[in-house]
Amino acid sequence: MLRVAVAGASGYMGAEALRLLCVHPKLQLVAVTSERLAGQRLDKVFPHLRGLSTLVFSELDPARISDEADLVFLALPHMESQRAVPVLRKHGRKVIDLSADYRLRDGALYATWYKAGHIDAAGLGEAVYGMPELYRKAISGASLVANPGCYAMGAILATAPLLKSGLGRVEGIVIDGKSGVTGAGAQGRTIDPMYLYAEANENVQAYAIGTHRHTPEMEQELSALAGKPVVVGFTPHLVPLNRGILTTASVPLAKSAGTADLLALYREFYAGEPFVRVLPEGERPTTRCVTGSNFCDVTVVSDPRTGRAVCVSTLDNLGKGGSANGVQNLNIMMGWDERTGLEAPPVYP
Amino acid sequence: MLRVAVAGASGYMGAEALRLLCVHPKLQLVAVTSERLAGQRLDKVFPHLRGLSTLVFSELDPARISDEADLVFLALPHMESQRAVPVLRKHGRKVIDLSADYRLRDGALYATWYKAGHIDAAGLGEAVYGMPELYRKAISGASLVANPGCYAMGAILATAPLLKSGLGRVEGIVIDGKSGVTGAGAQGRTIDPMYLYAEANENVQAYAIGTHRHTPEMEQELSALAGKPVVVGFTPHLVPLNRGILTTASVPLAKSAGTADLLALYREFYAGEPFVRVLPEGERPTTRCVTGSNFCDVTVVSDPRTGRAVCVSTLDNLGKGGSANGVQNLNIMMGWDERTGLEAPPVYP
Amino acid sequence: MLRVAVAGASGYMGAEALRLLCVHPKLQLVAVTSERLAGQRLDKVFPHLRGLSTLVFSELDPARISDEADLVFLALPHMESQRAVPVLRKHGRKVIDLSADYRLRDGALYATWYKAGHIDAAGLGEAVYGMPELYRKAISGASLVANPGCYAMGAILATAPLLKSGLGRVEGIVIDGKSGVTGAGAQGRTIDPMYLYAEANENVQAYAIGTHRHTPEMEQELSALAGKPVVVGFTPHLVPLNRGILTTASVPLAKSAGTADLLALYREFYAGEPFVRVLPEGERPTTRCVTGSNFCDVTVVSDPRTGRAVCVSTLDNLGKGGSANGVQNLNIMMGWDERTGLEAPPVYP
Amino acid sequence: MLRVAVAGASGYMGAEALRLLCVHPKLQLVAVTSERLAGQRLDKVFPHLRGLSTLVFSELDPARISDEADLVFLALPHMESQRAVPVLRKHGRKVIDLSADYRLRDGALYATWYKAGHIDAAGLGEAVYGMPELYRKAISGASLVANPGCYAMGAILATAPLLKSGLGRVEGIVIDGKSGVTGAGAQGRTIDPMYLYAEANENVQAYAIGTHRHTPEMEQELSALAGKPVVVGFTPHLVPLNRGILTTASVPLAKSAGTADLLALYREFYAGEPFVRVLPEGERPTTRCVTGSNFCDVTVVSDPRTGRAVCVSTLDNLGKGGSANGVQNLNIMMGWDERTGLEAPPVYP
Repeated sequence: MLRVAVAGASGYMGAEALRLLCVHPKLQLVAVTSERLAGQRLDKVFPHLRGLSTLVFSELDPARISDEADLVFLALPHMESQRAVPVLRKHGRKVIDLSADYRLRDGALYATWYKAGHIDAAGLGEAVYGMPELYRKAISGASLVANPGCYAMGAILATAPLLKSGLGRVEGIVIDGKSGVTGAGAQGRTIDPMYLYAEANENVQAYAIGTHRHTPEMEQELSALAGKPVVVGFTPHLVPLNRGILTTASVPLAKSAGTADLLALYREFYAGEPFVRVLPEGERPTTRCVTGSNFCDVTVVSDPRTGRAVCVSTLDNLGKGGSANGVQNLNIMMGWDERTGLEAPPVYP
Repeated sequence: MLRVAVAGASGYMGAEALRLLCVHPKLQLVAVTSERLAGQRLDKVFPHLRGLSTLVFSELDPARISDEADLVFLALPHMESQRAVPVLRKHGRKVIDLSADYRLRDGALYATWYKAGHIDAAGLGEAVYGMPELYRKAISGASLVANPGCYAMGAILATAPLLKSGLGRVEGIVIDGKSGVTGAGAQGRTIDPMYLYAEANENVQAYAIGTHRHTPEMEQELSALAGKPVVVGFTPHLVPLNRGILTTASVPLAKSAGTADLLALYREFYAGEPFVRVLPEGERPTTRCVTGSNFCDVTVVSDPRTGRAVCVSTLDNLGKGGSANGVQNLNIMMGWDERTGLEAPPVYP
Repeated sequence: MLRVAVAGASGYMGAEALRLLCVHPKLQLVAVTSERLAGQRLDKVFPHLRGLSTLVFSELDPARISDEADLVFLALPHMESQRAVPVLRKHGRKVIDLSADYRLRDGALYATWYKAGHIDAAGLGEAVYGMPELYRKAISGASLVANPGCYAMGAILATAPLLKSGLGRVEGIVIDGKSGVTGAGAQGRTIDPMYLYAEANENVQAYAIGTHRHTPEMEQELSALAGKPVVVGFTPHLVPLNRGILTTASVPLAKSAGTADLLALYREFYAGEPFVRVLPEGERPTTRCVTGSNFCDVTVVSDPRTGRAVCVSTLDNLGKGGSANGVQNLNIMMGWDERTGLEAPPVYP
Repeated sequence: MLRVAVAGASGYMGAEALRLLCVHPKLQLVAVTSERLAGQRLDKVFPHLRGLSTLVFSELDPARISDEADLVFLALPHMESQRAVPVLRKHGRKVIDLSADYRLRDGALYATWYKAGHIDAAGLGEAVYGMPELYRKAISGASLVANPGCYAMGAILATAPLLKSGLGRVEGIVIDGKSGVTGAGAQGRTIDPMYLYAEANENVQAYAIGTHRHTPEMEQELSALAGKPVVVGFTPHLVPLNRGILTTASVPLAKSAGTADLLALYREFYAGEPFVRVLPEGERPTTRCVTGSNFCDVTVVSDPRTGRAVCVSTLDNLGKGGSANGVQNLNIMMGWDERTGLEAPPVYP
């Protein structure tokens, strides 16, 4: 059995990785790390996993973890991943990085958006962007996979067919993301009052207007698809739910196309994908229908009044927008059926 | 004291009108109507008002209600308002219509979006669009005020200064609205399962993509401000909260402008307005901070990467987006201080 | 493979059965019925299951379904189950009844609480109360299993060790249940406005005070454990969440006992149970930690000031309080590992 | 105009006091204090109050505040109130203390439950328990009013008529409280992860079983009503809503009584009370119907099977369970109409 470790598992993203990995039939979860929780039992920190694991948190020692595990999920804050990755790779370990550190291929772009230079140029050069729908083959041979940001995953899956086909124009794209609260930082670190129940409940707000760090990810991938530079205006929003992102993207069309035509394009683009569901015309994606799963539901509607397509996708930010997608990447890297360990249907309602 | 009636008070919009009117110091609530609830005590239907009113619901008889009341709020479904209004007006009664029936000045536009001809062309010609920030003077002399749609109110207040000044371009505007659930139909009529708790909770969805009926209201008013036709792409969303709309509008700028410049423009435009609060730079509108009140909080951010302004507003869909704005209109029509009966601060948290 | 059908699958309880059964590795889901939904695709009604099933709803014909399936889950309203069960049993089919029809062994008690006589006395005599922790052996040989009510499951698991041991007194027991909204009726039938989002959200209420039909179930099972009649005062409450029941039971103690003693008693009582987790002293059951699973988390605290034990349990009303427990029963009936198809951990957060 | 200050206004209880006081027509809010927020504008900390106050937070200096204000609301943590009160009283200022410091008349009891000796025995001797329904006359002449705890208010109002009349027995009382999240600590101090959105949302839990500090308040007041010692078993619960407490009290009856008899007793007991609403038989208290107001809705149901009365009350923990009740006390102390500044109806939905 594959031995797998999760580093930085104190936050919600790490918790979701643990939840999926502890019952994955083809691997053994061998170690979990957290500086803050070192020494504590995993099932005391995450009592939903009581009875499912007897692991104890340890501090992160990349060298030691390389002895214990064949593959490591990193759920570390950005800047910390790029310190651990070189050590793990030196020891020949495969890495699935859930942080932002290896998503942008251009180190200069990283420096611009993350306000700090990247210290692992070699890793950056070899990392594969972990979106199976675009890079399945590269992922299968990769030793370092950069799992996409949750908003980026939603935005790219919502619009990729339009940009790839040339039907979508590269200017004037406006993307609006609405995310549940677990997208927003770990349980145990300094807590922004914005995430308190009484503050987030019965409340909606926009934040990071024009400055969210998933924006350059979207532009990188959509530009690659379009074959020319794409600029997007992206506004993220915090909405009162635990899990889920709904993305609404307005894309100007290069030529007139009806909704049925657009949906046909989407169905062709995503044909065979096990986790992208293009909905029948007239059905609406909801976050509810993907919660707890690796599915992304997508639709597109033509608006002839504005000459735009309105693209909508939903995913679970901890699922297809995070750890479940990481498990899909793991399955691809290992040559397993991509659905392995991801069979549990979405939890509705 | 002014005698006021509320017709069609079985839904949430009517309930909010009752909540505000039953303690308004300068008027007396004399009648409430509902076909479905006729004969029932108001405080049984709306037990939050127990002790605050002893009224009993009756059926709507426009002639009789003209005897009982000097001014009538109509919280009827659209198509029903236009049947009641001519009778009320013939009897010399003032009307504040919370329905959609008198918002579009162009009867043909009404027919297009509402799939039915308008039967009161005379009323349509005299109705004043009830947005005090744009039509205060006309409202003060009006006998028929068409209270704006909730999404329209949010979108127009968020973008009016840009369109009026010419700084905003009239093409390429993308507006994304997120509404709580009370925007969505009456408590007692046929219930769409979409509004069940277990369906709406922990769920976000887009609906009526490209077809929402508040769209032509936005275009009517923004075109009037711009002096030329404005087309907007509008997508409404249902988010899990009881009250509140957050509007995010992306407006291409005709020329470069910084956030501070834009905010200065907004402050000037809304100077003296008692219920529009332009936030200081760096602060974010939240629905939480306007819940239960007639406030609309607004900000604008320049995004030089896209050459667009991102405009954000929040309001309570039953407040500034509905009945509280109706009370502000009433105060204007009566020559009273606009804040009368609207003093209670937003309920946070 | 075992062929399984679900009858009456339009509500939340049926939907959860489908969610679990469609990925259960040892059976095949062969039919789903609903009078209202007959002819519709299952994945249109329950879009979270898109890609996981191609079944179409049919009308319930017990004879025909006996041809198609070896075992049938009934998620019918009470009174309807007792009409279908005799036919299914005549054809030799096994039945797991999620309704209330076969839970009370005493037909007269059924008549008292359900205001109608029971029409299948034979079935009533053979049905086994489907609580594996009390009746595992009987379930393994049963052809008709009456799955417990959600509140009853929570209350019995919370207090059984006290009653069985004689440490709990049989008089003066007060039980308070708090349930999420899915406990409350089907998606598609007549909708009580109480379950509308805007009514249930930000709201808590008690209902059916002294009259809830799960009360006699609790008394039947607790009396059997105590060996003498137990009367409980039970008050159910509706709280704003989709899934989950927390039960708080106050049980007078026959003699003094500390919390550690009580917990030791509970651990012994539930030793080896795969789905009951007695928490360590100082940890608190939460509905969050069992959502989406078949777990029931339990604790007990001694209150020497009152001479009472306070027993607390949490479960998912659709999980251990419903369909997941039904799957556990199915596994027992078939001689399979009880965890089969129930491996997915609770969905936190 | 009366000059009023609020000390310790950084938390939700203080915020609610500010919300009510800033529009109270007979007083002027002259100062707000918070060690943490000193120097910040009130409307930046609490943006819902933008436009309603221009105050700036200062540090608490009891001597200086005695110069500025005639009456002071203390929303300080317990132990801090008893340091400020003697200074304020020495300067002749009236005090309404929202903390727990002056609620228990017996200093020894305080020491037992709060694990610390009380340092202001003189104050303790003169403080009046601020429940107008029980102590209106004493409050009217008081200079120091101890505003009740939120759970205590709900429990006492739910059961007082039974204990006062002798119909309720003093043993075997079980009280179960369900509170929204704002009952649980300030916005800005150390944050228990339990109050994070993703932890509290979709979650219910019991806490402080047998040890909650509002228990001795309940016993003190119910014993005074009964004329003999009352012991209650109290279990508080955290439920996912911002505001509201529902209390369910099970009280053994000394003799048989029907629901109508019990309700008649309650109506007589609360006759003339402006803020306690005894509901008609068959109607259910909900937290929704009191949110944002000073109302407490109450009902009682006789359960002949158990010989107990089930008493249910709802209130807003920041309203009748906190600051709004404080304003009622202030009105009584000043000889004003008790409804002054409390006219705004509950915010439904």
